[in-house]
Amino acid sequence: MSETAKPAPAPPRVEVAAIVQFITRALVSVNVPPEDAAQVAALMAESDARGGDAHGVFRLPQYVKQIQEGAVNARPDIRVVSERPGTALVDGDNGLGHLAMKRAAELAVEKARRCGVAWVGTRHGNHAGPAQLYPRMAAAQDMIGIYFCVGNANLVPPWGGTEALLSTNPIAIAVPGLRHPSIVLDMATTNAAFGKIRLKAQRNEPMPEGWMIDREGKPLTDPKRASEGFLLPIGGAKGYGLALMFGLLAGTLNGAAFGRDVVDYTVDSKTPSNTGQSMMAVDISAFADVTAFKQDVDEVWDEMKSSPTLPGFDEVRLPGERSENLYRERMASGVPLGAPLRKALDELADRLAIAKL
Amino acid sequence: MSETAKPAPAPPRVEVAAIVQFITRALVSVNVPPEDAAQVAALMAESDARGGDAHGVFRLPQYVKQIQEGAVNARPDIRVVSERPGTALVDGDNGLGHLAMKRAAELAVEKARRCGVAWVGTRHGNHAGPAQLYPRMAAAQDMIGIYFCVGNANLVPPWGGTEALLSTNPIAIAVPGLRHPSIVLDMATTNAAFGKIRLKAQRNEPMPEGWMIDREGKPLTDPKRASEGFLLPIGGAKGYGLALMFGLLAGTLNGAAFGRDVVDYTVDSKTPSNTGQSMMAVDISAFADVTAFKQDVDEVWDEMKSSPTLPGFDEVRLPGERSENLYRERMASGVPLGAPLRKALDELADRLAIAKL
Repeated sequence: MSETAKPAPAPPRVEVAAIVQFITRALVSVNVPPEDAAQVAALMAESDARGGDAHGVFRLPQYVKQIQEGAVNARPDIRVVSERPGTALVDGDNGLGHLAMKRAAELAVEKARRCGVAWVGTRHGNHAGPAQLYPRMAAAQDMIGIYFCVGNANLVPPWGGTEALLSTNPIAIAVPGLRHPSIVLDMATTNAAFGKIRLKAQRNEPMPEGWMIDREGKPLTDPKRASEGFLLPIGGAKGYGLALMFGLLAGTLNGAAFGRDVVDYTVDSKTPSNTGQSMMAVDISAFADVTAFKQDVDEVWDEMKSSPTLPGFDEVRLPGERSENLYRERMASGVPLGAPLRKALDELADRLAIAKL
Repeated sequence: MSETAKPAPAPPRVEVAAIVQFITRALVSVNVPPEDAAQVAALMAESDARGGDAHGVFRLPQYVKQIQEGAVNARPDIRVVSERPGTALVDGDNGLGHLAMKRAAELAVEKARRCGVAWVGTRHGNHAGPAQLYPRMAAAQDMIGIYFCVGNANLVPPWGGTEALLSTNPIAIAVPGLRHPSIVLDMATTNAAFGKIRLKAQRNEPMPEGWMIDREGKPLTDPKRASEGFLLPIGGAKGYGLALMFGLLAGTLNGAAFGRDVVDYTVDSKTPSNTGQSMMAVDISAFADVTAFKQDVDEVWDEMKSSPTLPGFDEVRLPGERSENLYRERMASGVPLGAPLRKALDELADRLAIAKL
């Protein structure tokens, strides 16, 4: 790098409300009912606002393609197929994944109010954005939310193996605080989430070592060659174990796809994915005074923050802290959208004959 | 190593029943009621049989010391302090940790039978052995068991920090199969569990790099210097996030210790630890036909096993497979107990004036 090299200019920002409207227009144009389109658009734009750039409007062209080519049902009849006081199994009728998951999260909160805890699974769902969206709905109701899902592309072999039978199967957990924001963990069980690799590919950036290996076990850093290698699970065999168990809990238990059944919707827009997710809500008031508990959570936040730091670290961060800071900033100032994504969305608008973003 | 170096002879084996009887004798001698002593002894010996060597009879001298010095109550009045149809909070009255957790697991299974899912927390508990014991109880009842706890020694700083505010806070999940054993994950959220480090110290073996770092961030491999350094969480910030969330779920939610409150019972035998654990049971029949589900779990097992392997791996393993194989072998042929452990137990027997193992 020469001394005169300048950083790339920051991409122009787009208001969150404009993103919501654009997604809604696009989905309505492919026959999604306006109310459903608005719900999905709000959750997708929330993802962008929270910094989940690989899970927001970035995915819109793919969702539209899935609807147009038959993998996704634009007008699903989402229903509860089995139920107990604290549980339900929701069939998403192969609609957009956000719809079944929003229903599942709302049902979990309602059931936990009565039972103290609830577990709601989905089958015949689809990609539903970043995991954190749904446990956050529980946290907003003074509950703890926990979510697992089966990822949509198998890129992880069982530990020691060479057949990619597992996805990045993530977990998200949200715990509300009082003065501080909710503590929200949202993590793939691999060192890198697949969405981040797709974003690297779109931005023409190399991946750091440790994200992927090739079929000989050597580091793979070209994101465009992702299909030739494997993602590395966190902690080796441990991350494999987590991905496997979350797959059993979110896929197998719900009668949804897991293992060889998983359909990679980024390469197959015709076959329904039968995505499975599981959502839990725990009513804090079943265990503690809610305000006292939230104060205790604030204390945990402060305690972690108070730790001295290692060289190279400015401060200790809490899970969800960065996402919350971005959310506040982007709700006020808009979401920066890079030129390649903007171009893809403009092309989508042309194809759908709708107003551009 | 010279060519004539011979492997150390395998330690002599001791029958599982003899371990149960020895632990029972020891606990009864320090005023634990015989029925409680037998329950704890059975769970501790199961740990040894399953290969959880750092969590079985190895811990007995410490438990005895805690009872003798006042940290643990030999005759607890364990009771449910709050309850909803699907939840309960169990107060362990500072008794041996296995007693409160066995009660919590049984209650979770009973409540899940009615609600489909249950969540039971403990407070004023103590170290309760390896995490897998309790979700296995649910799996034996055709349920899925999930367990989190707050570990008993803070050895992990928040990511980027240098104050050890977190323990290895583990998770265990058990899912029953039909032809195959249950798939059972039992893992610390650090690259190495603390029990393994204690065992390395007792065996005078160095730790591999990656388990711990010192306060300057350099690798630490001498297990006797463990108190000078930190355990490394799996996946860096991700393992920190998991340890933090499991601490909130098993400690803070239950009114149990977490963060600076945590008492390291291996160095303090006088202060009650107020250990917290959380146990969940999910009734499979609320979601699927139980036999069909277990067959699906078997298929997942077979699918993982069928993967070709990387160089250096003989086969792909399932979580819990090694533990199950050891269990069968050790129930038949006994548990190998190394000379240092045998010596510690003989000395304990002398101090307590009970028959040796």
